Order: sequence, then structure tokens, then C-alpha cells
Amino acid sequence: MLKINPIILVILLCAALSLASSVAVLAADPAGATTGSAQDVIGATSGSPTAEDIKTAEKSEPFAAKLADTVGQNRIGVNLVWTLVAAFLVMFMQAGFALVETGFTRAKNAAHTMFMNFSVYAIGIIGFYICGFALMYGAAGAIGNLGGTPTLAGGHEFAISLFGKKFGLFGCSGFLLTGQYYDVMVCALFLFQMVFMDTAVTIPTGAMAERWKLSAFLFYGLFMSMILYPLFGNWAWGGGWLSQLGANFGLGNGYVDFAGSGVVHAVGGLCALAGAIVLGPRIGKFNRNGSANAIPGHHIPMAILGTFILAFGWFGFNPGSTLGASGAGNLRIALVAVTTMLASASGAAAAVTYMMIKVGKPDPTMAANGMLAGLVAITAPCAFVTPGEAFIIGAVAGVLVCAGVAFLDKIHVDDPVGAVAVHGMNGLWGVVAVGLFADGTYGGGLNGVARNVTGLFHGGGFGQLGAQLLGVLTLCVWAFGASFVFFTLQKKIMGIRVSKDDEITGLDMPETGLVAYPEFELR
Amino acid sequence: MLKINPIILVILLCAALSLASSVAVLAADPAGATTGSAQDVIGATSGSPTAEDIKTAEKSEPFAAKLADTVGQNRIGVNLVWTLVAAFLVMFMQAGFALVETGFTRAKNAAHTMFMNFSVYAIGIIGFYICGFALMYGAAGAIGNLGGTPTLAGGHEFAISLFGKKFGLFGCSGFLLTGQYYDVMVCALFLFQMVFMDTAVTIPTGAMAERWKLSAFLFYGLFMSMILYPLFGNWAWGGGWLSQLGANFGLGNGYVDFAGSGVVHAVGGLCALAGAIVLGPRIGKFNRNGSANAIPGHHIPMAILGTFILAFGWFGFNPGSTLGASGAGNLRIALVAVTTMLASASGAAAAVTYMMIKVGKPDPTMAANGMLAGLVAITAPCAFVTPGEAFIIGAVAGVLVCAGVAFLDKIHVDDPVGAVAVHGMNGLWGVVAVGLFADGTYGGGLNGVARNVTGLFHGGGFGQLGAQLLGVLTLCVWAFGASFVFFTLQKKIMGIRVSKDDEITGLDMPETGLVAYPEFELR
Amino acid sequence: MLKINPIILVILLCAALSLASSVAVLAADPAGATTGSAQDVIGATSGSPTAEDIKTAEKSEPFAAKLADTVGQNRIGVNLVWTLVAAFLVMFMQAGFALVETGFTRAKNAAHTMFMNFSVYAIGIIGFYICGFALMYGAAGAIGNLGGTPTLAGGHEFAISLFGKKFGLFGCSGFLLTGQYYDVMVCALFLFQMVFMDTAVTIPTGAMAERWKLSAFLFYGLFMSMILYPLFGNWAWGGGWLSQLGANFGLGNGYVDFAGSGVVHAVGGLCALAGAIVLGPRIGKFNRNGSANAIPGHHIPMAILGTFILAFGWFGFNPGSTLGASGAGNLRIALVAVTTMLASASGAAAAVTYMMIKVGKPDPTMAANGMLAGLVAITAPCAFVTPGEAFIIGAVAGVLVCAGVAFLDKIHVDDPVGAVAVHGMNGLWGVVAVGLFADGTYGGGLNGVARNVTGLFHGGGFGQLGAQLLGVLTLCVWAFGASFVFFTLQKKIMGIRVSKDDEITGLDMPETGLVAYPEFELR
Repeated sequence: MLKINPIILVILLCAALSLASSVAVLAADPAGATTGSAQDVIGATSGSPTAEDIKTAEKSEPFAAKLADTVGQNRIGVNLVWTLVAAFLVMFMQAGFALVETGFTRAKNAAHTMFMNFSVYAIGIIGFYICGFALMYGAAGAIGNLGGTPTLAGGHEFAISLFGKKFGLFGCSGFLLTGQYYDVMVCALFLFQMVFMDTAVTIPTGAMAERWKLSAFLFYGLFMSMILYPLFGNWAWGGGWLSQLGANFGLGNGYVDFAGSGVVHAVGGLCALAGAIVLGPRIGKFNRNGSANAIPGHHIPMAILGTFILAFGWFGFNPGSTLGASGAGNLRIALVAVTTMLASASGAAAAVTYMMIKVGKPDPTMAANGMLAGLVAITAPCAFVTPGEAFIIGAVAGVLVCAGVAFLDKIHVDDPVGAVAVHGMNGLWGVVAVGLFADGTYGGGLNGVARNVTGLFHGGGFGQLGAQLLGVLTLCVWAFGASFVFFTLQKKIMGIRVSKDDEITGLDMPETGLVAYPEFELR
Repeated sequence: MLKINPIILVILLCAALSLASSVAVLAADPAGATTGSAQDVIGATSGSPTAEDIKTAEKSEPFAAKLADTVGQNRIGVNLVWTLVAAFLVMFMQAGFALVETGFTRAKNAAHTMFMNFSVYAIGIIGFYICGFALMYGAAGAIGNLGGTPTLAGGHEFAISLFGKKFGLFGCSGFLLTGQYYDVMVCALFLFQMVFMDTAVTIPTGAMAERWKLSAFLFYGLFMSMILYPLFGNWAWGGGWLSQLGANFGLGNGYVDFAGSGVVHAVGGLCALAGAIVLGPRIGKFNRNGSANAIPGHHIPMAILGTFILAFGWFGFNPGSTLGASGAGNLRIALVAVTTMLASASGAAAAVTYMMIKVGKPDPTMAANGMLAGLVAITAPCAFVTPGEAFIIGAVAGVLVCAGVAFLDKIHVDDPVGAVAVHGMNGLWGVVAVGLFADGTYGGGLNGVARNVTGLFHGGGFGQLGAQLLGVLTLCVWAFGASFVFFTLQKKIMGIRVSKDDEITGLDMPETGLVAYPEFELR
Repeated sequence: MLKINPIILVILLCAALSLASSVAVLAADPAGATTGSAQDVIGATSGSPTAEDIKTAEKSEPFAAKLADTVGQNRIGVNLVWTLVAAFLVMFMQAGFALVETGFTRAKNAAHTMFMNFSVYAIGIIGFYICGFALMYGAAGAIGNLGGTPTLAGGHEFAISLFGKKFGLFGCSGFLLTGQYYDVMVCALFLFQMVFMDTAVTIPTGAMAERWKLSAFLFYGLFMSMILYPLFGNWAWGGGWLSQLGANFGLGNGYVDFAGSGVVHAVGGLCALAGAIVLGPRIGKFNRNGSANAIPGHHIPMAILGTFILAFGWFGFNPGSTLGASGAGNLRIALVAVTTMLASASGAAAAVTYMMIKVGKPDPTMAANGMLAGLVAITAPCAFVTPGEAFIIGAVAGVLVCAGVAFLDKIHVDDPVGAVAVHGMNGLWGVVAVGLFADGTYGGGLNGVARNVTGLFHGGGFGQLGAQLLGVLTLCVWAFGASFVFFTLQKKIMGIRVSKDDEITGLDMPETGLVAYPEFELR
């Protein structure tokens, strides 16, 4: 019965809180009736009217003042379309993860691997809806480029004082989107952040595939979406202490991570590493003499399709992270799409080249992982570097992922799909790359620092790099450390691994109740 | 030869009518040269200029008056981008249906099931192009948020008089998009409605899979896209009698179905029920003693991929149904996306919980159907409820679909993929949910009623609920009844089921001319 | 070692050039800080302000003049969103190609076919980034509807003089997007053109599947993306000589190819034809007596899924080719989406009808190819014809592809997936269709000719048709001829075909280092 309890509890909790929410006083702008007005024209471009201009115009140019209302509405409309479509693309990446992970594992576990990827999407949504979003963004001062009333501004950030500065730790408002958080612009931010969280939460299902117990996995899903991901997210993106390293201590623009090499991928990848260690390797992976056996994936076309879907969705992930397409700096989305594409190509090419030199064959597995590695690495710096630098960052990632997979084999960490090397190692590389390559053409005002983000190679000195390295350190301590503790405790309390028998015959039937391919003859 | 005739006839008919269309007088705005002007600024927001203001400004603020033309163009441009991208996402759902249905049926019928889903897309397009669109929208007063010249306004609605009120039954103009319907905004509406119709038309291919004769299926495709779907569509969305229940009889805002729980899913699901009944169960599904055998789907990863694609496309389905992103009420799209996502998650979680309690295993099949059920149920109320209520509506759907599948087994209706429970039952549940949960924050002006849509739980009384229940009744009578008559007649005239031999060896070769997996060893 | 050299060389070259780029003087508008201003309001619609109006307004209506800046920003924002989202959809077509080609070939080559489609995406990006884009668009006068500073205008076009007119052959600037090409609007154009090139470059992987050596294939990828595609692209779209046939010689609007039936599909399809001829047929395809054997595809659901993905992506391909959604003529995108959809349906229906008459079964393979043929054929004329004409163009394509596949079998050209018939023959048919059907409602100003594009059937005489036929001739000479020479030379120098043994046992292991389905029992 233990298996069921968490889900039922969560559903009952949500139902109760939801009913409460449905009778809450309706504040903010749930219908989008007042959002998107003349106010949103202010500061849209360097030549746009000021608040003062609008006031004056109401008398001197009454028609133009009214027209400004429609102009502001149009601007918010464009930004909303961009943000939502990008979020949809990111959501679709769930299918990509499911296919890559299932294709790269064995047929006898295909339904189980698929089901983990499927259910983690739903679990993540529920956890983030209950409290993840509130902890992460509950105190965000405004909703970035999304415009509208900054309803989240009223929120409270729990912070501690150190060295005479405030260190924000987590937000305290926005639970279940009730009350004043029943607002169209809050919804847009919620949706976009939700799909990012769902990306992070699905990463460990790859590294821990083929041996993870579903009942244990369910608790993990809630832990990740409710606590692990949102806290680091708050520190980096929600106004927390890492983002303030620039304003408080002069370290560049503070920790900068445009679309989440660290926030999303390294958090997922380092949690995956902890999980793979605690869970232990699959039966048959390592020999007595310490050598590793290759366990080939059962469906290469499936995995390649998944890779394409991920690369497709990444065009929502990275360019979408402006949260807007009209207004100061938002047109940068075109460059972001280009850097993203170039890094994916150079990552794949570098991995293939590496494998050709090492083993004489291109190896589609590593080609796919090379492309994903390039994408992970460019995720943090995508908005701050030139096309050429993006190409280099991706190429380094392509080599790094090959070396990383080999290294994990050597230290006997069994990661069936290469998730730790792709998301963990390259997530960290992407964070560092910002500190090295950011070229000083973009990002002014970010995290309250006026200067454009500038890395070591462009005369930015060690400030930005320092902030990035502190981010890397924090990621290692928090994402790996907290996960390790969580999995270790869970292992002691309820067990997290299936029985030997189930692992040998395959997890599909014992864990999910059916097999993936009941009619195909398998070897 | 009977098999070919319908297609050839249709092609010849279209070719003839198309040639006629190509010499028609070009009216309206086929090039988009005059659409999107200062006129589209009027009423965009509460602060926007009025028609009077524009007239005055032409003299007092001539530059601003000209600028208004570009502002209006921008607004139409944003709305068009939103509507088209949403339509594309909905179109992609065809792939999702094909995968879910094929994955959940047997390998020996995989090419047949795939081909039905593939060809119904084309057949549906042809039928809707010939007359479906005209019957459904031929008299729409204007093109909603799409703006532009309301070219459809000239159209005629065939109506009868009852109780001193007009009951609109179907439109009479817009066939083949000729003449004044060769217009960019009409095209946008046509495209969006086309992909919705294609969703409805593909639903029965699941419930009737593994035994349906292709030649009979082709006629069904035309019946659905030309008559069954467009008529109910006209009553609900094209200005027909159901939509006027509010204005004419004081029942709330009349029948309200934001994105089509009823119009699309219940119509498809109830037609599927009629078809499954007339067709009879598959050989081997039910035993002599009345018990049912489980016939497992042959490819679980395929079905889960399809589910993800459907969930992805649903973000076009529901939020896209505003037909716009800039202008009064359109920013609500962000909330619609959130309610859609939450209901999908709670639907899946509830179904998994139900199955864990019932059989002790999560069952990926029911998890997928639970997510789809949540999506179907939230489709009608998505724009009118809070996030918390969406969560509840989805959770109820997740339980309902499990119970529904069991119930159909009990009454010996064989629906291989659960289409009736997912789309039929939950389509009706979604329609009812509007009457219960609509929270009174949105929908003012809908169907000519000034008040926001308000359900029973938010003080709206029984008016809205009454309109919804009349909709449910109409759906049962029309969608189930007319389909039942159609399939029964067709069965008598030409037969609708393949031979016993073909069913036992598999439909692939006899019906489509090839097999799905010629190289894989099957059990 | 020969195998590796090209990749390493390319990477080193890119790295060197990229480093150079990263220290280049930053010009243009990399941050999108000045792009999208009052200037972009000029000429947006027929009623929009002129440059003169703006100047005057700065004094008489200062607020409105400032407001114009935001209006221009909004317009560029909308156009950018449209162009980028369309580009993403086109990028996703890579997955569609991979699935169609792999599904229609044999299981023993599935990893190899998948890997070709995967790696060609990366190779194409690298080649186009290095020099393809510069050769194609290096001298484009402005960036069409994308607005912004026409930074490419400074570029130089290499041209020769003939008959007293300039014949532009290729551009000479924009290599590696360095210097003034580090600009947001250049990036948008680059991205959109990149994914189009990647479509062309992946087409031959189908016709040449199951026997092509990977090492030879890599060189082909660079040849196509760096030279073959960009040159014809320059002539048609980059301001080169074909586009000037109207302005220079009075042939209609010059060669017109809205989204690339010729530029993309015929180039890919004719190159595929040359490759298939030089490579020779697969072992076992043709018998001694000259008759052909059908070699069925191993995974029909995979191929149908791929077809759906392609049809989905085509909604980016065709409507996206306006490069904008707000401003004169851009609203035409709604019609373009409709013509695209109708031609896909009539193509599929015509092919099925043809097969029913010929062999009595619908044949899902030809149904899929019929839909793709309809899409290829409508790609050039999609913006210039009525819905009815689109339907006819697609239906003709559906018949043509069936006849084409049979014809290639007869002349002993072995094209495993029908790529030549789909993309080559129907690409040319689409180019011709513009000259026949263009209805004179759209395209005024295109290629410097004021008149709307008008074909033979709409009173346009033989001028436009002449330009199109010259395009067809050029395609045959250049795309087929240059490819034939390239493949023939390559065959002599390094060999382009795998060994007989590898072909018989399957290319997966010897060429890629793993097999696609290690656990499935194959026949």
C-alpha cells in the first residue's frame, strides 16, 4: 500500500487546496483585461515614449495616447505568443527524452523506461504546482519581459544575512496559483518554468534506468520538482543569492545562466550521478576484473528520433528564454537560435571525429550524445557569445561527452544513456563558458548590474568567471549532495532498486504490468 | 470497382468546382492587402480608440491616424501567427492519434491502422473543403478575433422557426472557398477549423480498428467531414441554435464549448461508439461466458510517443481557440495553456492511482488514456476555470476513463484503444464541467450574452448548466444516433467488416497491400 | 585515416575562423538594440506613414513619433517570431526524412540510414556556415520582410556580363557570420535558409540508401551545402541571374519559386538521381531479364510517422517563406497554409486512386509519397494560386509520383524511397505550375517587377512560363550535371559504394559500428 500513498495524498492535498483557491478573492488580472496597455510601451525601445510622455500626450495628442494602449497590447501579445510557443516546444522535449532513453536501453525494460519518462512529466507538474513554483519565483520582483502587472512583486523571499548582505534562499508565495496569482502573466511564467523543471526532473530517469523501482521513483519526482530544482532555481533566476553576486560583491553580473545549463541540466545531471551511484550498476555491466561491458541500446532509430525532437525543442528552450520578442534586447532571439544550432552541429561533429579516431567508427550513439552535449553546453552562454564561439563551445562539449562516458565507465558508475556526461558535465562546462566567452554585447541590466555580461576572453577579467565558478561549486554541493543524501536515506527506508529476478527478466511486467513488445520475437 | 468510385468522384467533382473557382470574380482580400488596418485598433483594449476617435484624428493628429494603420496590421499579424501556429500543432495531433491507435492494437494490423489514420486526414480535408466548412461556418457573422472584413457575413444560414425563435441549422455559403471566400482571413478560419474536424474524424478509427473494411471507411470519412461534424459544429460554433440558447431562452451564454470537448471529442467518441456497436467486437475479445480478454497493444513506446504528441498538439487546440493573442481577452491564452497542462497531469495521476488500487500496477495504457481523458475534459472549460478547478476536472476524467473502459467491456462493446471512454465520455464530462465550474471571470459577450460565463458552483444558477445539458442531449441524439443509422445502412448496403479470414491473418496485406513489419519475427 | 580528415580539417578551419571572428570589430546590431524602429513602420501597409510623415511628426506630433518606434519594434518582433517558428518547424523535417527513409528501407541498414540523415544535418550546418550562406546571400540587397538594417547590402555579387546585362553568379560576403554579419536580422535569415539547405542536402540519402559509403557521403554533404545548393540558391533567391530574367529580359517576374520546389526539392531530387545512377542499383533489385523486384520497407508505421512530421514541418516551409506576418502582403500566409494543406490531401488521394486502379490496393507507401509529392509541387506556387488550383496541382503530383516511380524502375534507376520521383520530378512540376497557374493576385514588386505574378492560364502569356522553363533547364543542367560529375569523380578517386559483403550483411555494423535492432529477431 506504500506505493499508492504518495499519489493519493498529493491528489487529496491538491483537491483541497484547489477548492480553496476557487473561492479565493479574484485579484490580479485573470482575464487579461487590463494587462498590455500604454504602460507596456514605456522603455520598449530606446526611442519609445516615457511615462511622462504618455501623461503629456493625454492632453496634447489624445488619439495617440489611446493608440498607445493598443501598441502596448500588441507588444504583450507578441511576447506572450513567443513565450507560449517556446514553452510548448520545450514540453515536447519530454517525448525526446523518452525516446532517447528507451532507445538506448534494452527491450525488456522499454515499457518501464517509457513509463518513467511519461509519469515524471505528470508528477513534476503536480509538485511544481503545489510548491515548486512558489519556492522558486515567489519573490520575483517582476515578470521580466512578459510585462503586465508584476503581481509576484508582493511575494516574500526568505533570506539570511551574511557579510552584511542578504542571501535570498526561497520564495514564499504563489502556491497553487491561488488568489492574486490567478493572473495571465503569472500563468505564462508558470508554464514556461514548468516545462523547464520537467526537463530537469526527467534527466535522472536515463542514468538510473533498467533497475529503478517505480515506487521509489515517484518520491524522487516530488523531491526534485518541489525542492531540489526550485531552490537552485531561486538562487539563480528567482532573485536569490547567486544572482546577486554581482550587485553585492562585484562579481560581474552575478551568476548568469541564460537558459539553464546549470539550473536545468547540471541539476538534473548531478542528481542523476548521485542516483546512479547510490543505485549501483546494472547486473552484468562490470566484470570482476573491473572492465566494463557495452550494453547496446535496443532501438537506434528510436533514439535518433528522440535526439531530433530534443534538438527541435531546444529552439524553444534557448531563444524562448528571453520571454519576449518585442522590446529592448528581445530581437536577440535570432542570434540565440543560431548559436544553439551551431553548437549542436559542432558537438555532433566533434564526437564523431573523436570516435573515428578512437575506434574507427562514427558510433551513432555518441553522435547523438555529442549533439545533445553541444546543446547543453550552449544553453547558458547562448545569448552572450558570437556564432563562432558557439561553434567552439559545442565542439568542446562533443569531445567532453565522449571522454566523460569513458571516465564514468572507468570509475564504475553505470549510466545507461550517458545522461551524466551529457547533462551534468556539459551543464557545468556551459556555466563556465559564460565566464570565458561572454563578449560584452548583451545583458546590460541583468541581475541589477548595468554592464553587459563580459567574460575573461573579452576583457571582463575574473569577476564573471568567479560568479560562474561559485555557481559550479554550488551545483556540486547542492544538486549532487542533497540528491545523494535523499537517495541514500530513501534506500535505507524503502529500498530504491528492483529485485535481482525482476532486473534479469526485465522490469516491464513486474513494475508496470505489461510488456513493451508482446508480439515481437526478442533475442 | 465500387472501392474506387467515391475517391474518383470526389476528385472529379473537386477538379470541376476548382476550375470554376479559378475563374470566379476575385473579391474579398486574397492578398491580404486591405486586411489589418486602423479599423482593427477599435476595441482592441478598453483604452483603445473608437471609430469616432479615428475619424477625428485624421484631421487633428494625421500622423497618429496613419500610424494606427500599422498598429492594426500588427494586431492582425500577431493574431494570425498565433492562430496558424496553433493550427499547425493541432494538425500534428494526427500523428499522435496514428501512433496511439497503432501502438495499442496488434502488429498484424499495424499498417492498416496507420493507413486509416493517414488517409482520414486527406479524406477529411477533401470533404470539409467541398462542403463541411460551408455548412458549419457559411453564415458566421464575423471571424471572431481574426479581424479583417467579415466576408462570411454575407452568407446565409438555413433556419427554422420554433417557439417564435429562429433555430439555425446550417450555413449555405463558402463551398470550395471560391469567389468572395478567397480571402486571407477566411483561409485562417478554414485552416483552424479543418484541423479540428480532422481530429474528430480520426477518433473512430481507434474504436473500430482491427476489423473495419477500408472501402467502407472511406465513405465514413466523407460522411463525418461533410455532414456529421459540420452540423453540430454549426449549432455550437457557427451561430446555430445551440449557441443561441442564451440569447433566445436565457440559458446562460447558450451552449459553451471553448475548444470542443463536445464539438470535436464527443462527436468523434459517440460516432466511435455507434461504429463499434454496429461493427461488433473483434474475434476473440469476448468469451462464451461473457468475460472479456485483454488484447494487449503491440508497441507501448509507440503509443506513449503518440500520447506525448497529442499532449503537445493540445497546446494548439485549447489556447489557440481564442483565434488571437492581442486584443480584449486574448491574453487569457496563458491561463488556458496552464489549465490544459494541469488537467493532463491530474488525469494521468488519477488513472494511475485508480489502477494501482484496482490491480496493483500502474498500467502505462491507462496512464496514457488518463492523460488524454484529462485533456479531453478540460477542452470545453479550459478558458473559464481556475487552475485548481482544472486540476479537479482532469482528475475526475482520469477516474472516469478507467471506469468507462471497464464498463464498455462489461456491456460487450469492443473498443481496442479506449476511444469511446477517452473522447466520448470525457467529452460529455467536459461539456457538463463548464456548467458547473465556470467562474464568471471570462466570456462576456460570448454568443451575444453580455455576462461572463458562470456555472453552478460560482453562483450562476442552473442556466448555463441547462444549456450544457441540452448540448449533451443533442450530442447523444445526433452524434450517436445519426452515426448509428449511417453505419447500419452502410452495413446492409455494402458491408463494413472484413472477412473472418482477413481478420485472423491480419488486415495489413488484404486491405492495404503490404505488411507493417515484413522483416521482424512476430509471435 | 582518409575518413577522418575532412571532418578534422573542417573543424580546425572553423575554429580558426571563429576565433578570428570573435575579435572582429562589432558592427551591425548583434544585440537587436537599434533594429525595429519607426523606420519599419514605413510602407508596412498602404495606409502607413511615409518617411516624410515621420519627419514632420517629430515636430507636430512628438508623442506619436516616439510611439512609432514601438510600433516598428512590434512589427519586427512579429515577423521575427513568425520566421523563427517557421524555421524550427522546417528543422524538424529532418526527423521526418530520417523516419521515412529508414522505414522504407531494410532493417539491416536502419542505423546507417538513420545516421546519414542525422549526420547530414550537422555537416550541412557546418558547410553552409563556412561558405554556403555567403555564396547564396552574400549580396542580397536587403533582408526582405525581416526589416532591420540591410547589412547584407554591402556585400559583393560576383557577376559576368552577357548580352549587355549582368548575370549574378554568387555572393562574396558573410562567411562565418563575422564582422558586420554578426547581426540579429542576418541571423534570422541565416537560420531560415540553413534549414532549407538542410532539407535539400538530406534528400539524396534516400535515393542512395543501403549502399552508400559513409566516408564518401561526408564529402557529398560538404559539396552540397557549400557549393551545389548555394549557387542555384543565389541565382533564384539571392539576386542572381535567374531572378533577374524579368527585370532584364521581360520574362514575367523572372524565375519565381516561392518556397523552393526548384531551389530545394528539385536540386535535392536531381542530385539524388545523379547519385543513384553513379552508385548503381542495390544487389537484388533488378533481375537478369530486366524486371524489378520490390524490396519492401521494414517499418511502415515509422515511415507514416515521418510523412506526418514532414507535412507538419511544411507549414513552416511554405507559409514561413514570407519571412514576415505583419506588413504589406504578409497576411497571405493564411492562404499559403491552405494551399499547402489542400495539395497534400489531393496528392495523397490521387496516388491512392491511381494505385487502386493499377493494383487494386491503396498501398500506404505510395499514399505517403503522394502526399509528399503534392507538398513538393505546391511549394513553388503556394502563394500564387487559388485553393482550387492548389488542389489540382497536388492531384497531378500524386499521379506523377506513381508514374515516376514506375518509370525509374523501368530505366533501372534504383531509388529505395522514391526520392527522385517525389522531390525531383515534382519539384520541376511545381516550378512549371507557377508559370501556368499564378493568378495575378500576388507578388507585385517581386524581383523588381511591379506586376503581380501571372501565369499562362490567367492571361499572363508565356513570359512567366518562359522564366520557369529556363529555371527547369538550369536545374537539370546544374543540379543533375554538376552532381553527376562530382559523384563520378569521387567514385574514381575514393570509391563511393560499400563492399558487396557489407551490402549483403547490412551496412549498420561495418559502417556505423552498431546495429539498429540488436535484440529483435529478424527474418
